[in-house]
Parts: sequence; C-alpha cells; structure tokens
Amino acid sequence: MNLIMVVRVLGILLLCDAAAMLPAIPIARVYGEDTIPAFLLSVLITAVTGILLCLPRVRDNVIRYKEGFAIVTFGWLLVSAAGALPFLFTGVLPSFVDAFFESVSGFSTTGATVITNVEIVPYSLLFWRSLTHWLGGMGILVLALAVLPALGIGTFQILKAESPGPVSAKLTPRVSGTAKILYSTYLVITLVQIMLLKAGGMPWFDSVVNSFATLGTGGYAIKNASIGAYNNVYFEIVIAVFMILAGVNFSLYYLAVRKKSLSDFFHDTEFRIYLIIIIAYILLITLNIYGHNYSSLAESLRHASFQVASIITTTGFATTNFDRWPDFSRALLLTLMFIGACAGSTGGGMKVIRIYLLFKYIRREVNSLIHPRAVKAIKVNNIPMQESVLTNVAGFFVLYFIIFVIATLLMLTQKYDMITSFSAVAASLGNIGPGLGLVGPSTTFAGLTAFSKILLSFCMILGRLEIYTVIALLFPQTWKR
Amino acid sequence: MNLIMVVRVLGILLLCDAAAMLPAIPIARVYGEDTIPAFLLSVLITAVTGILLCLPRVRDNVIRYKEGFAIVTFGWLLVSAAGALPFLFTGVLPSFVDAFFESVSGFSTTGATVITNVEIVPYSLLFWRSLTHWLGGMGILVLALAVLPALGIGTFQILKAESPGPVSAKLTPRVSGTAKILYSTYLVITLVQIMLLKAGGMPWFDSVVNSFATLGTGGYAIKNASIGAYNNVYFEIVIAVFMILAGVNFSLYYLAVRKKSLSDFFHDTEFRIYLIIIIAYILLITLNIYGHNYSSLAESLRHASFQVASIITTTGFATTNFDRWPDFSRALLLTLMFIGACAGSTGGGMKVIRIYLLFKYIRREVNSLIHPRAVKAIKVNNIPMQESVLTNVAGFFVLYFIIFVIATLLMLTQKYDMITSFSAVAASLGNIGPGLGLVGPSTTFAGLTAFSKILLSFCMILGRLEIYTVIALLFPQTWKR
Repeated sequence: MNLIMVVRVLGILLLCDAAAMLPAIPIARVYGEDTIPAFLLSVLITAVTGILLCLPRVRDNVIRYKEGFAIVTFGWLLVSAAGALPFLFTGVLPSFVDAFFESVSGFSTTGATVITNVEIVPYSLLFWRSLTHWLGGMGILVLALAVLPALGIGTFQILKAESPGPVSAKLTPRVSGTAKILYSTYLVITLVQIMLLKAGGMPWFDSVVNSFATLGTGGYAIKNASIGAYNNVYFEIVIAVFMILAGVNFSLYYLAVRKKSLSDFFHDTEFRIYLIIIIAYILLITLNIYGHNYSSLAESLRHASFQVASIITTTGFATTNFDRWPDFSRALLLTLMFIGACAGSTGGGMKVIRIYLLFKYIRREVNSLIHPRAVKAIKVNNIPMQESVLTNVAGFFVLYFIIFVIATLLMLTQKYDMITSFSAVAASLGNIGPGLGLVGPSTTFAGLTAFSKILLSFCMILGRLEIYTVIALLFPQTWKR
Repeated sequence: MNLIMVVRVLGILLLCDAAAMLPAIPIARVYGEDTIPAFLLSVLITAVTGILLCLPRVRDNVIRYKEGFAIVTFGWLLVSAAGALPFLFTGVLPSFVDAFFESVSGFSTTGATVITNVEIVPYSLLFWRSLTHWLGGMGILVLALAVLPALGIGTFQILKAESPGPVSAKLTPRVSGTAKILYSTYLVITLVQIMLLKAGGMPWFDSVVNSFATLGTGGYAIKNASIGAYNNVYFEIVIAVFMILAGVNFSLYYLAVRKKSLSDFFHDTEFRIYLIIIIAYILLITLNIYGHNYSSLAESLRHASFQVASIITTTGFATTNFDRWPDFSRALLLTLMFIGACAGSTGGGMKVIRIYLLFKYIRREVNSLIHPRAVKAIKVNNIPMQESVLTNVAGFFVLYFIIFVIATLLMLTQKYDMITSFSAVAASLGNIGPGLGLVGPSTTFAGLTAFSKILLSFCMILGRLEIYTVIALLFPQTWKR
C-alpha cells in the first residue's frame, strides 16, 4: 500500500471539504446568524489538517486498486468527520457522535437525522447540511477527479472503486473528462429543479436546499413534516419527478445530450425495469391504502406515488407518515429499500440492474438443471455479460444480506424491537433515511444509543461505497506492499 | 417428458402410502377407537388410485432429469393428498384444506399443525400423523428407491432431484444400495431413541411417536405444550441429542460404520461448523434470556439448548414459549430457520454447507478485487468444488430469498402483521413448524385463512424439495419431448 499517496489525496479532499463550507458564511450574514465563528473554526481546522496531510513528499504517485479502496473509504470517513464540525461548533448537536452521524448521513446521501426540531436550526447550518447531500450524491471524489488529473495522478482506479456497479459506462476515455460531464449534467438538472420550485412559489432558500437533497437522493428536509409540510401538490410532483430523474444512470443523460435523442433511455433495460417497478408499486400501494388511510383515491395515489419515488430512489422525503400504512404497504416499501435505484445514479440500495441480473442468473441456473450442458451468456442491452460480473453481483447480494443480518442482530442487542432494528439497518445500508417503528418518518434517530448511531453510520458508509470497497480494507493482503 | 412413466411411479408411491396407513388399524383396535372405517376407506381409495395409475403400459422406462423433477414434486403432493384422507374421514379435520395442510406439514417434516387441541385426537391418527414425519424425513422416495430398481428402472436422477445438496456423497455405486444403507441407519437410530426414551419412563406410544418426529426432524408433538408437557430433563436431553444427530449428513454414519471409526465426523467441515453454530447460539441465547425470562442460569441453558437444537435441525419441538423471549433471541432463532441443518440429513433450511460455501464465495470475490487475476478454487474437506456447484449455491440463496419475500408479501395481503407473516413463511420454507407471533409455539396455524394455508403448504413442499426441483417444472422446456 502506497500510504503516502493515500494520505496526500485525503489531504486534497479535506481542502475541497473546507472550501465547500465557505458559502455558509455569507448565508449566515444575510440571515444575521451568529454561526460565522463556528464555520470559520471548522474551515480552519479542516484546511490546516488538509495542508498537513499534503506535506509529505510523494515519490511514487501510482494509484492502484488497493490505494483506490483506501482513498474512497477513508476519504468518506474523514470528509464526514470534518463535516461534523459545524454541527458541533454551532451547538446544534453538542455530542460528536450525533454530529458525525448527521454528517455521514449527509455525505452518504442517506438523510437519517438526529435533529428533533429542524425548524429552529440556523439557515446557514441547514444549507451546509443539505449541501453535504449534493456533494455526497455525485461523489465528492468524482469532484476531486476533475482536480487530481491536473496533478498528474492516474485515477481510473478511484472511479472503479467509487461506483463498482456491474455495467461500467466509460463515457470518455479519460476519467477527468467523464467526471466533468457527470458534474455538469448534475449541475444543470439541479438548476432546473431550483427554477421549477421557485416558479411554483417556493422560497429561494427552500428551493435550493430541497433541490440539493433531491438530486443527491439524500432526503434532509428543513421542515419537521418533511415535504408534507408544504402540502402543495405542485411541489410534490416536481420533487417526485426529479427524485426519479436522480435515480437514473447519469450516462443516459450524457448520451441523450450527445446524440440529441432519447432513444437510449427506452432501449436501456435497467431504465425500463426501474419505471415498471415504480408503476407497479404505486398501483399496489394505492389500492392497499385507499379506504384504509385515505378516503379519496386521488389522495391515495398522491401519497403512494411520492413515497414510492422517494424510497426506490433512496431519497427518504415524506409527505405522510407511511409507518401508519398497513403492513403490506410497509413491507413493500421495505423491499424497495433493498432494490434501490439505477447503477450510476446518486441513489443507493442494491440497484435495479443487480436485481435484474440475479433474476437472469437463477433462470439460467434452473435451465442448466434441465439442460446440463447448455450454458448461455446473460445479456444486458444485447451485450453479453462477463461471468466475473455475475459472480460479483451474486457475491454482492450475499454480502449485503450477511451484513444486514449481523447489523440487525447488533441493533437488537440495544433492546429495540425487530421492526425498528430491521428497518433502521435497511434504511442505513440502502442510504434511504427514515425506516419504520422508532425510526419512522414522523420521528428521528436522536433517541438511539450511541452504539446504534455508530453502527448505523458504518452501515451508511458501507452501503454508499457498495460494500466491497470497505470490506477489501479488512483483508490483510490489501495492506501488504 | 415421459409422462406415462411418471404416472406409473406415482402409482407405486401411492401403493406404498396405502401400505403405510395399515399399522394405524391395529393401533385403533388396541385403544378401542372408532377410526378403523376411516383408515380402511383411506387405504382403499389410495390403493385403488395407485393401481389405476400403474395400469397404462410403459414402453420407454427411462427416467431422465425432467421425469425426476416431476416424480419428486407430484409424488410429494399426491402422497400428501392421500395422507390427508385419514384426517378428513376421522372427522378430526373436516376441511380438506386443513387436512391437506396437516399432511403436507407431516410429509415435508415441517410440523406446523392446525389441530388446536391435539390431546383429544385418537391415538391411531396421532400415530399416522407422526409416521408421516418419519416417512417424509428420509424421503418416501428414498424408500421407493429400494423397490424401484427391482422393477429395472434407472433411478439415479431421482436421488439427484431428491437431495440436490452441494456435495453429493455417492456411498455405493448403485442407488438402491445407497437407499438401503441410509434406510437401515435411519431405522437403527430410531430404535435406539425409542429405547432410551422408554428406559427413562416415557410410555411406549409416546416414545415411538416422539422418536418418529425427532428422526424426521418434523416436530409434531402429541401434547399441546409439545415436549415441555413432560417437564423432564432426561427426555429433553435425549430428544435434543437425537435431533442434532438427525441433522447430520447420514453418509457420515455410513462411513463410521464401515471404517469402524468416527474420524470422518471430525474431519468433516460441515459437521464442525454445525456444532460451532449450535454452541455459539446456545451461549448467546442463554445470556440473553437469563434474568429476563428465567431466574436460574441452568434453566436458561436448558431451554436455550433445546430450542437451538430444535430450530437448527428444523424440528420445531418446544419446551417453552420462545415467542416471549427478547427480540434478540427471537431474531437469532429466525436466522437459524434460514441456516438449517446439514446437507444429506432429514433437516431443512438452506443447509450449513451452503452457508459455508457462500462465505467462501464472497471471500474469494473480495480477494479477486485485490488480485484480479488470481481465481482460486474453493475447497471443502480439501476437495476443490466445481464452479457449477458454486453458481448453484449462489443461485439457491437468491431464489430462496426471492420466494421468501414474495410469500411474505402474499401473507401480508391476508392482513397478518409482519412478524407473523415473515416467520410463518420462514418456518414453512425451512420446514421448521412453529414461527413467531400468531403462529408461535404456544399456538397453531388453525386460525389462518385458507389462502394462507395453501400458500404455506406450497412453501413447505418448495423447501423440502430444495426449490430447484419444483421451479424446474414451471419452465416450458421441462415439458417438451
């Protein structure tokens, strides 16, 4: 392991993190808040640490897989730790465990909060909180990818570690080019959403932070009742549509812009299945909650649509307390937490393409029982998949469940009930945010034990980095020279 | 598909089924019960149907994989349907759905019951009920394997379909020989248990039926409080030990007898892990329930040991109402329902060897991320596994979960709570018996809707036949000539 190189990249990431905290200062000025010293101190500590990490002289600036895994995992942890400082110094979350949980939840685009009354939090801190979603969403490392190549560092491995989704869409040969394209697409979509929300009458501040949380599929709201607080169908439609857009593989946008055609969307298997799942779940839940929770069909459809869009994209916004829905609907939402959004999006979960490949995989397995000699390649978008991709996907599924079971058992040692433990882990590992029971949409994670908060923070990082990246660091081979 | 051949074998199975009902008649005489007409009618209908199915002339007596799958699946269904007749005709379960559920639960060695007061059921019927476990346990098809070869029918495919565990232990080259050896081992162990229970003071009838339920890892008790009703530590120890013995791969007994040494037991990876899991779970649960449910450590250890042995072997006997245990222990028992016993035993669940292979599989997968070119074979007992075995195991895991999720959602449409739905499906698919909540050990499955009973019956068959066998029948290719 080329540790010096890893440390240097971590230093650069911290410098970016410090820079990202700066916009909160003018916001504090505008709203006349006393949070400026807290932000200045956070920036100072983060920047100085970053500079110190950059000091050691690097002889060998090669980044291999091993270094990639270390940079991604420690990068996310370190950036989250620094991001916790404003919560701590403003006194909003005086415990470091709480501040760290909130920051990890932000950068991992989970959106699980420990702030019980978000409506009394200063605007500058709310802005920072939502910005962590936006930065985390696209990956602050992808951001950094636009900087690092200028330093002459080979970073293809980082992108591989960052999004080890089954289908790698190499948009352009050079990583920095890819990062820039993804970054600008992301920016443009965010701006469009801000404009649409503003046009509908949402205040500027709300439009901006809600768009950050939507595009990052994070879900931090600035009202205790989440998006439900606005009680505005137009806002809900805009946010639902943009959540669904944020859950799409971003390379499809790139291709659409380059080819000036939407044909790739409709020829993409994952995108089609994603839409089918959304429609099917909306119908099932609407029928289940109609007459049970809502007397009108339109009202049922409205809440079912928003919640399905929110959970499958792993955003976690809410317009209603879905923990009061019948168990059938609650269980359906739980399955969505595992499915997640499309690969190459800002969403979490296992990803639609993996679920699709698993279905193809077992289909082929049963087939091979009938015709033991005929082993056919599995195709996606008419391209045959390599066997190694399939074993990776099957292994991911198994690993996801093993971690899920172990983490749930650990939550149960804290004496929470099964539904709470089960859903808190599912919502953290899938980067959703609210779960069910004690961590349902009408409550927060504040009441949990410190052990639970640390455990769930770790689950968020595991889920965000698609597990393998973090697990690889536990293997001694990774640390050998 | 060679349908005529399939039908003929099904006919033979029904004739065996009819013969197995005969011992209940002398028992009815001894106890002076009025169930003799009901049994005679059941024997008559089953035997006549069996003869009719054997009538068509068979030209081609080849049994391939396809026919094997059909024989196993339809055989289990048909034998269970015939086995339901005594429950129906004696009037104990006047609804056919209930009688079928009880019979499937018996032959699949699940032990989930719909009889609310088992202590008023005639002895002859209790004997039949427990005998279905014993017959199901070893596989009435393995029994039939000792008969079929005499008819000159190639039956290797049936054994393959019967127990498609990952490690095929071909004890002797000829299937009929294998079947005979397994059958006699099974008989001897059953007799030893009957003797031990009798020696401890258990009545003859109870010793016999409890041993049937133990060896088949079924779990039908003849007391409402299950084994807890005896409140006898000696009985509990004997039954716990024999449950664990029944959960071991039977080829190990064969090897021990032939080599006159127990060395294979301790060199067998699966056996070692099975014991480690049992010990670890007993310790964890003892610590969790001590002071919470029981004031003495000995009492906690006693109930924890019995319940762990009962659930990992998928028997389902109970000495206490474990549904009242803390959620941590209840969740641990749930994970045991998925793990299950050893391959080649009478137990259900996913099987210890599969879980072990999955851990090896993900370990190799993470390794391949660090060293992309080094792909090593996974070994069990120092024998390298074929890749096809591993894809089969990974596929099995995925399939098990998909079926589990779909069945749980279907249960939820019946308005049961999540814990009940979740555990009822886990307990049926894993062939355990009691679950948690409304289907916990202190209650029965009697109150469920007819739809739920049919669904869970199907899960029991799926679980018992290790899923692939049944799923293969859903593929049109299986039905082509």
